Amino acid sequence: MSHFSVLTSCSQSRARLGRLVTRSFTIDTPQFMPVGTCGAVKAMAPHELEALGVTMILANTYHLFLRPGHLLVRQMGGLHRFMGWNRGILTDSGGFQIFSLSDFAKISDEGVDFASHLDGTRFRFRPEDAVEVQEALGSDVMMVLDHLIPSTSKPDELKIAVDRTLNWAQRCKDAWTDRSADLWGIVQGGLSADLRIVCAKALTEIDFPGYAIGGLAVGESTQDLYAMTDVSVAALPSDRPRYLMGVGLPENLVECVARGVDLFDCVIPTRNARNGMLFTRSGKFIIKQARYRDDPRPPDPECECFLCRTFSRAYLRHLYMSGEILAARLATIHNLHFFMRLMSDIRDAIAQDRYDAFRKAFHVRYSGSVAEDGCGSEYGLEA
Amino acid sequence: MSHFSVLTSCSQSRARLGRLVTRSFTIDTPQFMPVGTCGAVKAMAPHELEALGVTMILANTYHLFLRPGHLLVRQMGGLHRFMGWNRGILTDSGGFQIFSLSDFAKISDEGVDFASHLDGTRFRFRPEDAVEVQEALGSDVMMVLDHLIPSTSKPDELKIAVDRTLNWAQRCKDAWTDRSADLWGIVQGGLSADLRIVCAKALTEIDFPGYAIGGLAVGESTQDLYAMTDVSVAALPSDRPRYLMGVGLPENLVECVARGVDLFDCVIPTRNARNGMLFTRSGKFIIKQARYRDDPRPPDPECECFLCRTFSRAYLRHLYMSGEILAARLATIHNLHFFMRLMSDIRDAIAQDRYDAFRKAFHVRYSGSVAEDGCGSEYGLEA
Repeated sequence: MSHFSVLTSCSQSRARLGRLVTRSFTIDTPQFMPVGTCGAVKAMAPHELEALGVTMILANTYHLFLRPGHLLVRQMGGLHRFMGWNRGILTDSGGFQIFSLSDFAKISDEGVDFASHLDGTRFRFRPEDAVEVQEALGSDVMMVLDHLIPSTSKPDELKIAVDRTLNWAQRCKDAWTDRSADLWGIVQGGLSADLRIVCAKALTEIDFPGYAIGGLAVGESTQDLYAMTDVSVAALPSDRPRYLMGVGLPENLVECVARGVDLFDCVIPTRNARNGMLFTRSGKFIIKQARYRDDPRPPDPECECFLCRTFSRAYLRHLYMSGEILAARLATIHNLHFFMRLMSDIRDAIAQDRYDAFRKAFHVRYSGSVAEDGCGSEYGLEA
Repeated sequence: MSHFSVLTSCSQSRARLGRLVTRSFTIDTPQFMPVGTCGAVKAMAPHELEALGVTMILANTYHLFLRPGHLLVRQMGGLHRFMGWNRGILTDSGGFQIFSLSDFAKISDEGVDFASHLDGTRFRFRPEDAVEVQEALGSDVMMVLDHLIPSTSKPDELKIAVDRTLNWAQRCKDAWTDRSADLWGIVQGGLSADLRIVCAKALTEIDFPGYAIGGLAVGESTQDLYAMTDVSVAALPSDRPRYLMGVGLPENLVECVARGVDLFDCVIPTRNARNGMLFTRSGKFIIKQARYRDDPRPPDPECECFLCRTFSRAYLRHLYMSGEILAARLATIHNLHFFMRLMSDIRDAIAQDRYDAFRKAFHVRYSGSVAEDGCGSEYGLEA
């Protein structure tokens, strides 16, 4: 199992500096995990991720289960060896994709019946299968199978989903055989603070080495995202890592770190890169805008990434307009550099107990506005 | 202007070892130029090309003229700076693409009227424009505008095209202002040996620092390709570099080096890579074949490229089947490594005057057959 330790805590928020020692690699937290859906972070080679300081990636169990198949990955020596990545790998349980991607999903207490979005093949996926598949992949941190429903569902439906999530969490824990890898529980409960607290407390009773906050970043308001993160974190044990699934935008990372989150994953830096959107400290930069046609400046003049050290806005725009693969590569390098640098700056600020000032300064530059009390009051949250 | 010197000649064929010193970089010949159509070799970053030993690339004047425009490239400091490539750049004249890609092309003695394949915009492109555009791009080796017609055209049509090609060659030379860059002539004449000889001799009279052989690799038989290469080379001065445009397959390179060609370009290694075809010394390797699904071996066990040192056939196939950009990148690295290594082996063999044996051994392994006299007699050519 992994070992997690909190090194420093912020004196003005729940932000904390930590270290997660997994069997494959040590991850400094707060940390962001790029997403390698199909066993590759899109457009990137493993050594490039290492050079950017990536210490852990997220891989999707659903996708790898369907193609190339978890047994093939195991036969090839596990996902680390298969994809040439020696650092940390966290896998989701597959539940989210089953509900969002598959052509058909029918849930029962036993598990989920679904049809592959690739070829329609039907599968039954039980909590025990989620663990077996993730163990075959050789994930360092596995997730329990959870029951996801829209966060706006009725209270009794949310209650059923939470009960099932807790039942499945116990079944996953019972099915977990290789304790050198981690298995983490997932807090569900939609936008109900009460249910989230119930779920978090019950998961803590089952006892996992880490906990995720799930069911968010699926269309709810930013206010709800932060509020549910707050209540979930508060109900989880402080000595275990907290992972906010599927989040998010740079401003979400900064705010959720202040709410006590240690780990994040999101497709935003890589997907937006392929769509021509670069992140900078002053906000978003859209490559295809005509005003960059003859702009000789680096895309982000204060950035030190390979793109910004080497090429002009005019060239990047030209590559993007021409549909060149290199545009996707360069923009992905830039955005991942931005996210990794942001997390590194966040850790430095916490280490020096100046996270409040960092957060304030970040928002002023990034969105041109400042939280008046410097601690996110504009989001209706505690100072 | 460039300086070309022949260092060693093969005692059994026209193969020769040379060195082309351009204003940007020194190119050891025989050499292969990867194609960077739109100012990027598809899927590759410049430092990766350097690491593979690429010393010169070909860029397409037609594409860069239309997008982003030669004046923009000049404003950005020229193509070398624009694309972050400090080594050699050879540009074609645009003629080939005007005839093959544009929606409309009408030729007169004055030049070509054509419509952009991107948006239908009409342009008139004269020989003088071809030089002006290439000078704006900052190409190290420019090509004259030539008149391309199907190699199977009637003799009188071919004759008209050759006469026009010669007239335009002279006009291009007259328009050539920056003599630190090269301008090379192009031998046309379809599949008529007589016309090719006439064209080569007349171009030699005009006097260019180098000569290309054009109008081949457009669907004619391999026998015709080799025969026309033979007659063209024989009619060109031996102290100038000879460039066979658009060629080609590994077996074509080996055979045409024996016929005295110094320089090649082709999209085959990069395009085929993106389509999942890898070159190996034993022939072609098709990634998507089901038999590689669980094959843990490197794609090419005797290859030293990044792909073959790092990943399995199973992983590459998985990336390819999943449509991952990384598949295109890895396969492109492999194929360019194969082509650059082939050219390096070719140069070594010529330097040691064992090109005949090299050529024989290459064919035996690559296609499983051997030229009986070891000098391409199976192609009906001289020993």
